Amino acid sequence: MKKHNFSAGPCILPQEVFEKSAQSVLNFNHSDLSILEISHRSKDFVAVMEEVRALVLEFLGLEGKGYQALFLQGGASLEFLRVPYNLLNVDGKAAYLDTGTWANNAIKEAKLFGETVIVASSKEENYNHIPTNYTIPEDASYFHCTSNNTIFGTQMKSFPKTAVPIVCDMSSDIFSRTLDFSQFDLIYAGAQKNMGAAGTTLVVVKESILGKSGRAIPSILDYQKHIKAESMYNTPAVFAVYTCLLTLQWLKKQGGIAGIEKINEAKASLLYNEIDRNTMFRGTAVKADRSIMNATFLLENPELQESFDKMWKEAGISGLTGHRSVGGYRASMYNALPLESVQVLVDVMKEFETLYSTQSQLAE
Amino acid sequence: MKKHNFSAGPCILPQEVFEKSAQSVLNFNHSDLSILEISHRSKDFVAVMEEVRALVLEFLGLEGKGYQALFLQGGASLEFLRVPYNLLNVDGKAAYLDTGTWANNAIKEAKLFGETVIVASSKEENYNHIPTNYTIPEDASYFHCTSNNTIFGTQMKSFPKTAVPIVCDMSSDIFSRTLDFSQFDLIYAGAQKNMGAAGTTLVVVKESILGKSGRAIPSILDYQKHIKAESMYNTPAVFAVYTCLLTLQWLKKQGGIAGIEKINEAKASLLYNEIDRNTMFRGTAVKADRSIMNATFLLENPELQESFDKMWKEAGISGLTGHRSVGGYRASMYNALPLESVQVLVDVMKEFETLYSTQSQLAE
Repeated sequence: MKKHNFSAGPCILPQEVFEKSAQSVLNFNHSDLSILEISHRSKDFVAVMEEVRALVLEFLGLEGKGYQALFLQGGASLEFLRVPYNLLNVDGKAAYLDTGTWANNAIKEAKLFGETVIVASSKEENYNHIPTNYTIPEDASYFHCTSNNTIFGTQMKSFPKTAVPIVCDMSSDIFSRTLDFSQFDLIYAGAQKNMGAAGTTLVVVKESILGKSGRAIPSILDYQKHIKAESMYNTPAVFAVYTCLLTLQWLKKQGGIAGIEKINEAKASLLYNEIDRNTMFRGTAVKADRSIMNATFLLENPELQESFDKMWKEAGISGLTGHRSVGGYRASMYNALPLESVQVLVDVMKEFETLYSTQSQLAE
Repeated sequence: MKKHNFSAGPCILPQEVFEKSAQSVLNFNHSDLSILEISHRSKDFVAVMEEVRALVLEFLGLEGKGYQALFLQGGASLEFLRVPYNLLNVDGKAAYLDTGTWANNAIKEAKLFGETVIVASSKEENYNHIPTNYTIPEDASYFHCTSNNTIFGTQMKSFPKTAVPIVCDMSSDIFSRTLDFSQFDLIYAGAQKNMGAAGTTLVVVKESILGKSGRAIPSILDYQKHIKAESMYNTPAVFAVYTCLLTLQWLKKQGGIAGIEKINEAKASLLYNEIDRNTMFRGTAVKADRSIMNATFLLENPELQESFDKMWKEAGISGLTGHRSVGGYRASMYNALPLESVQVLVDVMKEFETLYSTQSQLAE
């Protein structure tokens, strides 16, 4: 029996991705070779890389607009470093919006390379909302933001209008909702949420912003070198890239981003409505900034934790424990999580209320 | 029918690694979850990481000697950068031995960080041998060498005695032969030859050499941060790391490095003896420096290429085409390649000689 997997990442992928990628490990494309033992320069894998890079630009509506899609190694954490190396002018400054742990990690790396302006932060309120009304210095080399904060359950619903290039870490909500993606100059995302196996990172970059920082960039960090090498500067994470292709092929059958967005909104509504209705729980993020990917919520009575944990585990749910920075629970509802899994969770929450609400009141 | 896969990397892995890792994609450890959808901080994956890190030190005989094993992202190409960032003193110099394309790429990255002394190079002879009789500056922060040169088919049989820390790129011969590994201070190796799926890189480092360069090291590049985080500073390439564990478990059953070394020597002898005996072929590397992992050889009569290619392809052999830097053929005989595959190649070479040696002579 498959679990209802609410894990924050690595996380659930479509069942057909598991099946097809497992098959490819035994015999890839009827080649009598495993995908693990073929050269990344073989015709079959070059075709995988070309198709997945093209699909990314197609989904984001960025074909023919001067963008390139790359699948690199190192995780979003390496992009925290690649971004300032490539984009932060030697004598310039970078602007960052501080919306959580990962935004903060990005800021730490940038600080080694030049002046780093934090335009706004919600740290004082434990990152329970997305700051507004901030000013981006006009002379900044770029503005960096995190579109979705996995740990805190918040999500940017709009992005600033600015002449400064916008860099966005979309690790936990890439391909989950329609946006005008041409407002971004560089997007990056670790694969292990909405794309595929951990081990590869998507970078989508507008070529015209590159080559201007005035830095001597180490080859492995140089986006231009990766573009020139068609995302094969060094051996890519072959299997992880292939899982991304399979996931994007699945996404196409769901009607692309617009199609999956409707399902994601239905899942998020179902769960947030229950969190708000159910007397046993409360959400942690400010409502207007709630993420449709990661819903964070607490028990009104923490003493009932053991009882609730037992119930959801018995219902076949996994990965619901919240991050230590927030506590409580986190339900991650990435693209591949079926609506039925959210329904199972909501049913458990209702049942929990029925069983424990009186008891909870008596205990007060 | 399984191919005889002589690919230079990504390359053949043990059949049981294909089977067990495919199974883990469908259902990992009877968890009813795919290995692709579990948290890297789940108990099951933490156990994988701990076991594989311990096995590495056990195989290398480095347990309890102040070394740490890490599985990082980025490929050996990122280690070309991490090494100088961590080890090259701000006002110091680094010493490099130039034995091929990859050594050269490592040198290029180091040059951005300080004085880089090339102690010797075989570039003028198209890297057909390993230089000897060179001096390592006593004040170098470290000495860097490449133990096996995949492209040129050469391998270092011994390593210099020096008080300077030795850094060795063992990407293409790690775990293939017995050595006193305590002579090295830092070893790194991309997984995709003798270890597992592309997407993870092994780093084995003596802790006492770290923290001395006087540089502000970006977090993602800082070996000390990765050690402190027990190789989980950021999401590791979960699946690729698991394939490494499976491969090392297989290696243990082969008698560890000493066991596989005997088989590797038998494979190399079989092929090199044929290259030397057969009038149709000649090797490209100086005999004393021949690699037991990658044998490079040329046709005496290049006009017969099409005929020879047809024959080995019909015999079920794949991945034999040489790298463009050398031409001709390259037979990569990594740990998982069975002796039988080498025998099939040798048989084809003999048959080729029988069929074409007269014709070849007539054509002269």
